[in-house]
Amino acid sequence: VVLILEITVVLNSQSNEPLYFQLYSFLQKEIVDGRLGPDTKLPSKRKLASHLSISQTTVETAYQQLLAEGYVKSEPRKGLFVTDLQTDLLSVVKENPLNRDMYTQVHPTNPIKVDFAHGKIALNEFPFSTWRKLTIQSLYEEESHLLLSGHRQGDLPLRIEIAKYLYQSRGVCCEPDQILIGAGTQYMVSFLTMLIGRERTYSMENPGFHRSREAFKDQGVKLLGIELDQDGIKVEDLRKSGASVTYVTPSHQFPMGMVMPISRRMELLAWAHETESYIIEDDYDGEFRFTGKPIPSLQGLDQHGRVVYLGTFSKSLIPSLRISFMVLPPTLLTLYQNRYSIYKQTVSRLHQQTLYLFMKEGHWNRHLQKMRTTYRRKQATLLSLLSEKLGKQVTVIGVDSGLHILLEVHKQMTESELVNLAEKHGVKVYPTSVYYSSFDQHYTPKILLGYGGLTEKEMELGVELLKKAWEIRAE
Amino acid sequence: VVLILEITVVLNSQSNEPLYFQLYSFLQKEIVDGRLGPDTKLPSKRKLASHLSISQTTVETAYQQLLAEGYVKSEPRKGLFVTDLQTDLLSVVKENPLNRDMYTQVHPTNPIKVDFAHGKIALNEFPFSTWRKLTIQSLYEEESHLLLSGHRQGDLPLRIEIAKYLYQSRGVCCEPDQILIGAGTQYMVSFLTMLIGRERTYSMENPGFHRSREAFKDQGVKLLGIELDQDGIKVEDLRKSGASVTYVTPSHQFPMGMVMPISRRMELLAWAHETESYIIEDDYDGEFRFTGKPIPSLQGLDQHGRVVYLGTFSKSLIPSLRISFMVLPPTLLTLYQNRYSIYKQTVSRLHQQTLYLFMKEGHWNRHLQKMRTTYRRKQATLLSLLSEKLGKQVTVIGVDSGLHILLEVHKQMTESELVNLAEKHGVKVYPTSVYYSSFDQHYTPKILLGYGGLTEKEMELGVELLKKAWEIRAE
Repeated sequence: VVLILEITVVLNSQSNEPLYFQLYSFLQKEIVDGRLGPDTKLPSKRKLASHLSISQTTVETAYQQLLAEGYVKSEPRKGLFVTDLQTDLLSVVKENPLNRDMYTQVHPTNPIKVDFAHGKIALNEFPFSTWRKLTIQSLYEEESHLLLSGHRQGDLPLRIEIAKYLYQSRGVCCEPDQILIGAGTQYMVSFLTMLIGRERTYSMENPGFHRSREAFKDQGVKLLGIELDQDGIKVEDLRKSGASVTYVTPSHQFPMGMVMPISRRMELLAWAHETESYIIEDDYDGEFRFTGKPIPSLQGLDQHGRVVYLGTFSKSLIPSLRISFMVLPPTLLTLYQNRYSIYKQTVSRLHQQTLYLFMKEGHWNRHLQKMRTTYRRKQATLLSLLSEKLGKQVTVIGVDSGLHILLEVHKQMTESELVNLAEKHGVKVYPTSVYYSSFDQHYTPKILLGYGGLTEKEMELGVELLKKAWEIRAE
Repeated sequence: VVLILEITVVLNSQSNEPLYFQLYSFLQKEIVDGRLGPDTKLPSKRKLASHLSISQTTVETAYQQLLAEGYVKSEPRKGLFVTDLQTDLLSVVKENPLNRDMYTQVHPTNPIKVDFAHGKIALNEFPFSTWRKLTIQSLYEEESHLLLSGHRQGDLPLRIEIAKYLYQSRGVCCEPDQILIGAGTQYMVSFLTMLIGRERTYSMENPGFHRSREAFKDQGVKLLGIELDQDGIKVEDLRKSGASVTYVTPSHQFPMGMVMPISRRMELLAWAHETESYIIEDDYDGEFRFTGKPIPSLQGLDQHGRVVYLGTFSKSLIPSLRISFMVLPPTLLTLYQNRYSIYKQTVSRLHQQTLYLFMKEGHWNRHLQKMRTTYRRKQATLLSLLSEKLGKQVTVIGVDSGLHILLEVHKQMTESELVNLAEKHGVKVYPTSVYYSSFDQHYTPKILLGYGGLTEKEMELGVELLKKAWEIRAE
């Protein structure tokens, strides 16, 4: 039995909501609440329009919306009927929980006077006006073609510039075709587990870069930590481990700071060649070597295509740009091209174009040169402050390269005591133990000090505060 | 027995290479080639400097570099000795293979006159001067703080704007805290398998979005294809499959184009609630619904926290920006915050800030409104062209929403015949069968036509060419 209803609804023509939408909302609610039950026939457009003194188009639009959303169904030559909706389920339509007042940004009062965070860089040295000029130039070029998706590996002009730079400065030998640009090192690491395969056993330096370690683990691969000696990862241990992929930071081991000497590099490459393993070489701050020229990369020494080189512009340019890249050896490149070419590029083309111009016009080399001097000076300042104020009570480790050093404090204090005492005195320093994948009972507390983003004044205050915090006496 | 050598080397003070580097290179080569064998003692700085008539500092710098790279080692109070390098391995030091001439960009002559690609959008409608103005404004703000890494989920102001927009336009109810910004849908899909867990069985619509399908597979999860009926994914089949995660495109099924009616939505949500499964709702072009207002999202209907909502600015703004986002339900949000907070944000802060201003100042809503009209008009044009020129020889599918339609051609031709004939006549159209995860013997050839990036003229030419290609007669 089909019941034909007369519907009465108050429509407000002064409202912000269009009439059709008011009508639609009313009917939708009637259906949801069950007052218009399953198989109820809606009045014809003509009838309802005349009854409500509105146009047939308005009714038509409301009906179309109900139809589109499935609240009613159409039976040819018969009309529109209410759908059976299992109304108990429909009571779930929610109210808006969004309370915007909760999200006014809060800036907590920060009692920290000096922060030796290792991720900070010297932004004030960044050639901002040049970068801005090139961004604006790219914006105008963008109008034509840069709005569309670009090449999946990143735009070729930028890859050519990166290849040139890598060869000249890092001893990396590659074709632009081997370069894959992407949004950050963690993205690259995740992508690599897919490319190299999750069935292999992975390994990395222990201690090592925590963000990469977590990325490997989260990809569900078996990951072993390999101990270091003074030259870096112990290849002998690597051999015994059975791993067939290893992740290393040979330019400036993170966090210990040693530079892998050539003999260890050759040993590591020999291992990879003999066991058909892959080496992932993360050159995260290889540009900032302070004594002599940068050391040639593993990639440049490798003749058997066993090295994946990872680089980033986060340390040397701007962290917020999110531009990293990797250089794939031929086997992985072929695999990528055949099997994984469906993945789109993750970096904005505007930034790619800007960086391309920045490199091509020589700003990049000049900037690097300048930053090397800046950081060398900063490090020298920090080292002399430490020596002057803390003297023989501390030992400094890992000074050849990079934007951080380690400190061993010769006091009978645990790492967390050292960190907490410093924080109480308004200076933030960082533990090194967090970079270990397993507990080592012979571990000596080591404090990590980043200095890339600090001024001389801040470093001076910071070291002064550390002296107080750790109660180090003048000698 | 230690042999003390006299070294003779020709240094060129007119060269671009610094003297220390020439000396370093010479010694390094002597060591690598084995002419300076293991344990050879290098002459003292003083001696060599005087012998070569150069400064001691130059020798010192060259020695330091050799030391740093491990070619020599220092023995306290004895001097520097050549390291045992296993010289056979060292012959691997490579020459530069980079041939830059190969990489001048090639633009192949393209015989295609009209391309019905579905990824294209109407770029000429983009409010470019506004976007450029806001980018430049952001560039100036960037100088202060935007250069540093931002919030891992994306900057809060942008997340607040996205939450407001989602509520108003898509019926998505969420706190800005639940939003995670990231570099593209495939990145999000990969990230989600990590978050939801790779031990679950995944499923998705069949046919379905190929880029997501590959991303799921590449994450190593078990992935099942679930058949569609006229309302979208068959929940009955989903129940039987044993999957506990499903990926759907309810606003405009990709590629079939149906809009999932409310009854099917409720059924799907009930399944997720009862089986504690997750629904990944990809609203890839949900903004472009042409009849009536957009349909509320699954996320907005869900009361049990079983839906992850995925959105992107690629279709509605600029593909090359690479900004997507997802809305996590509370359980996954907690897991993310506790366990995966180590992952850095992948989207440039400059673009986040620009998009924030674009949304806040109302340009986004205006732009969407305009694009909806534009695409509606384009679709209407295409439909009338198809009806006029191809008449009853074709059936059009999936016209309620989105930027593409499907065409069934009533000729005894396979899909690839249709595609190839079109290409021969200078018009690129796309197969639909590629979106199926398994072969279906009842499959009817369907041609996919995207129209977002085409002008009326181009569409007219395109349809005209299709008519010729497929030998469709006027009726």
